[in-house]
This record gives sequence, C-alpha cells and structure tokens, in this order.
Amino acid sequence: MAFEKVKREDNYSEWYNNIVENADLAEHSAVKGCMVIKPHGYAIWEKMQQQLDKMFKETGHSNAYFPLFVPKSLFEKEEKNAEGFAKECAIVTHYRLIPDPNRKGGLIPDPDSKLTEELVVRPTSEAIIWNTFKNWIQSYRDLPILINQWANVVRWEMRTRLFLRTAEFLWQEGHTAHATKEEAIIETEQMLDVYAEFSEEFMAIPVIKGKKTANERFAGADETYCIEGMMQDGKALQMGTSHFLGQNFAKAFDVKFQNKEGKLDFVWATSWGVSTRLMGALIMVHSDDEGLVIPPKLAHIQVVCIPIYKSMEEFELVNSKLKEVSIELKKKGIFVKIDDRDSYKPGYKFAEWEQKGIPVRLALGPRDLANNSIEVARRDLKTKEIVDLSKLSDHILNLLVDIQDNLYQKALKYRNDKYFLVSNWEEFLDVINIKKGFAIAHWDGTSETEETIKNMTKATIRCIPLKDEYGETGNCVFSGKPSTQRVVFAKSY
Amino acid sequence: MAFEKVKREDNYSEWYNNIVENADLAEHSAVKGCMVIKPHGYAIWEKMQQQLDKMFKETGHSNAYFPLFVPKSLFEKEEKNAEGFAKECAIVTHYRLIPDPNRKGGLIPDPDSKLTEELVVRPTSEAIIWNTFKNWIQSYRDLPILINQWANVVRWEMRTRLFLRTAEFLWQEGHTAHATKEEAIIETEQMLDVYAEFSEEFMAIPVIKGKKTANERFAGADETYCIEGMMQDGKALQMGTSHFLGQNFAKAFDVKFQNKEGKLDFVWATSWGVSTRLMGALIMVHSDDEGLVIPPKLAHIQVVCIPIYKSMEEFELVNSKLKEVSIELKKKGIFVKIDDRDSYKPGYKFAEWEQKGIPVRLALGPRDLANNSIEVARRDLKTKEIVDLSKLSDHILNLLVDIQDNLYQKALKYRNDKYFLVSNWEEFLDVINIKKGFAIAHWDGTSETEETIKNMTKATIRCIPLKDEYGETGNCVFSGKPSTQRVVFAKSY
Repeated sequence: MAFEKVKREDNYSEWYNNIVENADLAEHSAVKGCMVIKPHGYAIWEKMQQQLDKMFKETGHSNAYFPLFVPKSLFEKEEKNAEGFAKECAIVTHYRLIPDPNRKGGLIPDPDSKLTEELVVRPTSEAIIWNTFKNWIQSYRDLPILINQWANVVRWEMRTRLFLRTAEFLWQEGHTAHATKEEAIIETEQMLDVYAEFSEEFMAIPVIKGKKTANERFAGADETYCIEGMMQDGKALQMGTSHFLGQNFAKAFDVKFQNKEGKLDFVWATSWGVSTRLMGALIMVHSDDEGLVIPPKLAHIQVVCIPIYKSMEEFELVNSKLKEVSIELKKKGIFVKIDDRDSYKPGYKFAEWEQKGIPVRLALGPRDLANNSIEVARRDLKTKEIVDLSKLSDHILNLLVDIQDNLYQKALKYRNDKYFLVSNWEEFLDVINIKKGFAIAHWDGTSETEETIKNMTKATIRCIPLKDEYGETGNCVFSGKPSTQRVVFAKSY
Repeated sequence: MAFEKVKREDNYSEWYNNIVENADLAEHSAVKGCMVIKPHGYAIWEKMQQQLDKMFKETGHSNAYFPLFVPKSLFEKEEKNAEGFAKECAIVTHYRLIPDPNRKGGLIPDPDSKLTEELVVRPTSEAIIWNTFKNWIQSYRDLPILINQWANVVRWEMRTRLFLRTAEFLWQEGHTAHATKEEAIIETEQMLDVYAEFSEEFMAIPVIKGKKTANERFAGADETYCIEGMMQDGKALQMGTSHFLGQNFAKAFDVKFQNKEGKLDFVWATSWGVSTRLMGALIMVHSDDEGLVIPPKLAHIQVVCIPIYKSMEEFELVNSKLKEVSIELKKKGIFVKIDDRDSYKPGYKFAEWEQKGIPVRLALGPRDLANNSIEVARRDLKTKEIVDLSKLSDHILNLLVDIQDNLYQKALKYRNDKYFLVSNWEEFLDVINIKKGFAIAHWDGTSETEETIKNMTKATIRCIPLKDEYGETGNCVFSGKPSTQRVVFAKSY
C-alpha cells in the first residue's frame, strides 16, 4: 500500500489517481484502456447496483440479458446511432486461433475462421435489443415493455482515466417500448428522476436535471435528459442520461404494433443508463486529502473496529468485546468489520481505513474496556469522541444518518458557492477561467454560438435545466441575441 | 405465447426447446450461437446468483472485475490453457468502423485501426487475472487472495442449445491464490461442496461429487473436481467445476511470494465456476409435459394469485381480497404476484403460469369469498385443495417447503432408479444403450480404455466419485485389467 499522498489543491488530477490507488479501488490492466476493479471498489459498485436495481424494479422494470455482439448489418441500421459509435468500436473478425508457424508457442488468428460478417462488441445495445423487440411486439397488449440490463460495454477510448473514461465499462441500460409518445416521455422523465433521487439520497451528490442541446444528444435520440454533478474542481460530470428515442429505432428495425383502434403504428422508445463512471463522481465529490470518503448508504463496511492491545491477553479481552459489539451493531442492520490482523499495528490500520473511506472507526483498548466506553471516530469530519458502550448502537445509527446528511450538505454548499448567474461575457470568462464553476447564462439557442464558446473557453452547455428558476427572458451572454432561458455552462469530464 | 406442447417421451430434445420457449425463458438471437435471456429466465438466474454470491461471501470471497479482453501474448502464456481454448475464441482485430465506399450507409473495419496485438474475448480469465495477481502478491501476508467475478465469457460453439451450450454465456469464476498446496486443495474442495450444497438445497438436484480423469480436466489444471447431475433422459450434465491449478499459472506468469521463512516460492492456485448452464439443468430435471417447474427456493414468484370474476363488481371484491392476502403473504417473506390483467381469461392465465413453473397458484372467486376460503394448486403434483383464508399463510409456508422437498426426492428417486452397478461389458451396454442411465463400473485407469469406450458407446467417465461407496477393488468392465475403484460412466450434455 502506498501512503504517499497528493494534495487536492496541488494537483487535482494526480490527487484523484492517488485516491483510486491508495483506497485500492481500481487499477489499469494489461489491456490498453481497460481497468481492473478491485474488491473495495467493486463492493461500492455492488451497493450502487443493489439500490438502483431495487428502484428499477419498484418502477416496474425487469432485468434481461442480450448478446455482447452486434452483427455489423444490425449495427448499421439506425444511421445516426451507427455514425455516433462507429469511431470507437471493438470489432471481432475471427473465431479461432492456430499455432503461429513462425513462433514456437505463438498463436495467430486462423485465416479460415474469418467471419463473413464482422461482429461489433456492443458500445450500447439499442440495435440488438430493437431487433429482438421486433419479435416480441405485435399488439398494444404487448406494450409497454420495460427492460433493464446490467452489462459490460466497450467504447474504444484513447485517453482513459480509471472509472471516468475506460474502453470497457460496466453499466445498466434500460430499454423500453411504448404505445404512445406521451407514455415514452413520462418514462424518460421518470427514470431521470430515479437517477436524481439515487444521486442525492444515496451518493449524497446534488444534481441539476436538464436536457442536452441538439449537439450533445445521444446518437439516435430525439431528446437526451441528464443529471449533472459538480466535482471539487468546479467541473461538471454527467452522471446519468435518459433518452427519449422517438420512433427512430422502431423505424430502423421496422417495429410496428396494432393499436386499440386496430391501426398499425411504430413503437415509441426510451433508453437510459448509468455506469461505473458514478464511482468517479463519488470519489471526486467527497474525498479529501486523506483519501476516499464513502457515504454511509453506499458503504459495504460502515463501521470498522480496531482492537488496541499490547499482550495477547489484552487482545483476547478487547477482541471478544469487539465481537459482542459487532453482533449488536449487525442486529441493527449496520455493516461492521473487525480488523483483527495481528500483522499490522493500529496506526497502520487507522491510516488504511481512513484512505479507504470507511464512515466510522471504533477503537477499543483495555482502558476503554475498564470504563465501559469506546472511541468513535467519524471519517468525514475527522472528529473523535468517547461513547458509553451501553449507548453505542443508537449512537452509531444516528451518526451514520448524520454523516450521510453532512456529506450532502457539504457538497451542496460547494456546488452553490460555485454556481454563478452571469449576465455578460466578462463575468462568463471570470466564472469559467478564474472562479472555476458553473456559469448560468442566457444563450441564443444556436449551435454556432455553442460551438464558438466551446472552442474559445472549453466550456460546454451541460444542460438546459428542467426547473427554470430564473424564468425571465434575456440576451445571449455571447451574441447578445434574445434568449428565452438560462442554461448551464461548465468545463466537464 | 405458443401453447403447442411436445411430450418428453416423444422427443426429449424438442420437449426441452418447447419448454424454454413456452416458459419465456430465452431465445436465439441474431448473433449466431448467442442467446437472449428473457425476463422470466433472467429472474431465475438472478435468484441463483444471489444465493451463490451469499455462499461465496460467507466463505470469505470478494467480488472484483477484470477486463473482457485478453491480449494474445498473455493468452499464450499458459500453454495447455491456451491450447485448450484457442479453437473457440472470438478475436478482436480492429477498433474502428468507417464508411464503406462501395455501399451507401454501410460500414467496414478501418484498415488503419488494425491492432498491433489481437485481443481475445475471454473464454475464461485465468490469464488476465494471474497477470494482475503478479502485482498484488509479494509476501505470504498478501495471501490468500479470494476473488470471484460475475461475468460474460465467449467460447465459439458451432452446435448451440439455449442455456446448455451457447457461444456467449454468463457465469461466475472464482480465482484464488494460496501460500501452500494443502490450502489450495482445501479451497478447491470447499467450493465443490458449496456447489453441491447449492445444487441439492436450492436447485433440488442431487449430484455426484467427483474428480475428472486426466482426459477431461480443465486445460491448465492439475486436478478438476466436478458435480454431475442426472437429467430426465438419463444423461449426465456437468453442473459445476472446481480446479486445483497447482503452480501452473504462477509459473506461466512468474508469480512468486516470500514465505514466512523468507524464501521465494511460486503461488498455488484454484479456479471454480458455474454458469447459465445451471438453467438448463433446472429445466431438464424438474419440468414435465405441462412445462417448467421451479423449485420454490429459486422462484422469484412463488405464489401467483388469479381473480375469478364475471362482473367488474365481482372483480373489485375479489381483487381487493387478493391484495390483502398478498400483503399478508409478503409479510411472511413469500414472493407473490397478483395477475389482475383484464385482457386475459382465468383459463389462459392458469395455463401460462403453469408453463412458467410458478410453484403455487391461488384462485379466488365470489363463492370462495363467501366461504372465506381459497383454492390452492401446487405445480409439482398438480393437486388442488380448498384452504381456509385464515390459515392461508402458514399453509403456504409449509407447502413451499413441501414442494421443495418433493422435487428433490423425486429427482433423487429418478437418479437412483437409473444408477446401476455393472460388473461386465454386457451389463454396461445394457445400462448405457437400453436402460439409459449411469453405469457405475470398474475401469483400468488408462486413457486408452476410456477413449475406446467413448468411441464405441458415446459414454464418458463423468467422474471418479470422491465418496467411494463401493470400496472394493475389481476388474475393468472393458479390459478386465485390475481396478481400484468404480467410476461413473454416462452419456452427457
């Protein structure tokens, strides 16, 4: 374990990499652009999955599984979608290896195993799923179809960063089919709300809900909704998207249904997804110079217990009390781990679990035992207190709620402090370049202005907020032309 | 929904396909050899996953995630493993598509995106994982490493069958690293026990635990342990394997550790896995001519409630009572669904849920309501009874236990009835060809005899049982040479 630490202020990007490494979350693999998600990182992702899966099921969705590969001819069918992903696809061309005649022990693709049609490793699954839905849908009675899939996808990336941008990543993708446009839009918005609720209540990250501009839409969507969070460098991270796909995929794959009136119509579609990128958001929003900070609701270990002892006799006494404590806490539904490794000293353990972001640390020594008390340290504020053992479980339950709330409030305050209403170009540049935050500005609605601003400042329109708190009309911060609504500009990941 | 039914006796293979289709479990996709797992099938797989995952965690394992792709140079390193899987690998050679100059809207792999080193889509992950373990292991203090991964893998298959043999399948693969040979063998055997317990207690399928012969071992293993179940055609299905890998992968990837005495030694390894193939076993062991039968412990819907009514007024009354019933059952931890679709008649619903294998069906009509009773039908025995509503939840709890047990006992009896001790070649042929079961026979221990028997009869040695119930020595059923132990011969999937 590396204990060398980079400060957030000194080098934000190095600080991020440092935390991912020191907290044992993930690492680069031998495959360019692909990561290994290590047990501590994967356990947090599993907590996210469990909660999201519950929310998807509560809103009526079922899980299913579709193939990893998309035949090229299907991939091509929805043209915009194909164009959007063609530049970054892994392509399977052969299905067998044979010994390399020129290299002992070496293997080469067997030329005789060349596929007549190449297979694309799914970058997203609309094509293969809508080709399947075609056979599932005849009448309005077959609708809606509400499906979700947990899967890996591949988008070939040249410049990768652990969790934030990797060639292979894990995600869920919802795919739904509806009889009416209205119903599909309601679904799109519902799932955006699910993502926002998950982000705020479980990840403790406040988000802005909005729509993407035409430039930033998902390839093949009529409308892309998103949630945007603010990281601790003032940049935005797109944390989830929900797409209203109109009838684009139904038309590309000829998926029609007979409506109640007996007429044939194309089916309406949505798709929506979040990925292991959320791990990047979690790390960047809550961590500090000591390491990761996990919100209690997503911690697979909420409380770590460390015995303090000199002799083996002391160890036995202290450890047996910790076991009692742990059983009591587990009964209350708290996830507890006792770190009773004898091969490491308490100081080392304190540092390790601090880096790993465990919300609460308990330390118990012989003197505490004599006093019937225990030391309770919270990771977020780094404060310690002595708590009576008889009151421990209620204390911890309250503490976990308090930490979760504190993390959210802290993130909200940070976001609000860097969230500026700007009214002219000078203020815009000041926010983007000096204050480094979100510039809430009027925009004339043209792609030209959006592109020009992006080229000049690297700031993009993160979203057109759904909740227009500044309902007044105004003038574009750049062109001066009329504008009906403010939008959110920021640099982003 | 197709209601046409094939009888098990008439055509076993068609009967299987028919159940997979009618129960809405899975279907073939547009990608040769790859399947779509439909919601009802996936929900059963999820129940399996949850239980297995719990058992893996209880035995100290953590989940992690490793890349989908294996660089060819790593794939080659463990020679036997590479040789074993080279013939059935999907190979990625390009990472970009560009417009096809000869076909409007068409795409072709960009020749400029050809990879300098091909990537193999993982058929199994030993290579990529041991290449990673190399960096995780320096000293005995880093051991053991106990990892599991839930993932998709690809093994190119020409002759595929839904769940049983598909080019892409879902599985879990455990990979562990140990300081001593003894510890690794204990782990290998422990995980075999976990699989056997899962199969018998949750899938209600009795299994034989054993070791594979050298011919049938996993490519790269020193020893392969397996569990073998018997299907309703008397054939064997390998349901799970646990491999003692010796130091083969440690040597191939140069993974050494410093032991307590300060000496360097190669690390000892195991790997173990079960896959969506278990769905095939579940279907083949318990289904009947009416369709699927799900053991209650793996049913995501254990009880389906169907309202019987003529008028909307009756519907309201009956349905509101069913809601009460459902809440009461849910409180007891039972998974309940009310099928209140007005677009289908009760008879249709009965048939649908019967095909889908739901363990218990409740039907409630106005007359039942007047009598404060309800009709309870069990899927396994197809019996019905009238139960007092006040005693329903206890009745159902007992019933679910009884169904689970009955399915196991039935499968055990079937297996035992087709499990024959044979003492000469004539009896052997009779069991394999006429009685169609398992032949428990003496074998001389040579690959030659094993191969000859396979070529003559299609029967293979499924395993050398761990529990040698027939401890006597004897003479090989084929060659007459001395034999120390009986082994299990059968035709297999």
